[in-house]
Amino acid sequence: MSHQAISLKDKLAKFSDQWAPKVIAEINDYQVKLVKLEGEFLWHKHDETDEAFLCLDGEMKIELRDGQVALQSGDLFVVPRGAEHRVVSERECSVLLIEPRGVLNTGDGNSELAADNDVWI
Amino acid sequence: MSHQAISLKDKLAKFSDQWAPKVIAEINDYQVKLVKLEGEFLWHKHDETDEAFLCLDGEMKIELRDGQVALQSGDLFVVPRGAEHRVVSERECSVLLIEPRGVLNTGDGNSELAADNDVWI
Repeated sequence: MSHQAISLKDKLAKFSDQWAPKVIAEINDYQVKLVKLEGEFLWHKHDETDEAFLCLDGEMKIELRDGQVALQSGDLFVVPRGAEHRVVSERECSVLLIEPRGVLNTGDGNSELAADNDVWI
Repeated sequence: MSHQAISLKDKLAKFSDQWAPKVIAEINDYQVKLVKLEGEFLWHKHDETDEAFLCLDGEMKIELRDGQVALQSGDLFVVPRGAEHRVVSERECSVLLIEPRGVLNTGDGNSELAADNDVWI
């Protein structure tokens, strides 16, 4: 059996659509996803799970109802379950997400921004 | 409530001991850990869980019984549950680990290399 490392850079080069997370690996029933963000997402929450954001490239902000967090490359933040949040990025930003399999990017939000789930690259 | 990003760089600057994973965040019952590696670890496996390695800095190799994977900065590899593996790094390498809370670094291996578990920085 051949084993191969997953290059985040190579995976990021494979897509250009924004706000549409791509799965690159699974850890048991958790998924590691990559997503490109630019502009403002909708306010939403995930009542059933925390959600981790690791900024890989660029700058982004995670707004919460009681504050906000600025992330640059190499910064991690975990949005607690149930916490309404909105991601904002002035310029395109690449982000690694860690969350259980099945989590929708729009959470409880009803929006056309909902991406197809479980899309692998 | 004030929210703060977790800087991987700042966290890595806070410790120098090798082979001793430090927890920096939790995602539900999963933990994100940082570890510094140099030399060879013992062969071991985790029968109950996959284990993700994201190389942040340096170069490392994950040896498996049926092959090996070379990781550089920005490369990810998930060791499947039950797969015996050994990490090797010629020079110090910084790694981000993702795995369920409670996983011991030495898995089923009996070794003095077992680090204290659930140590936060």
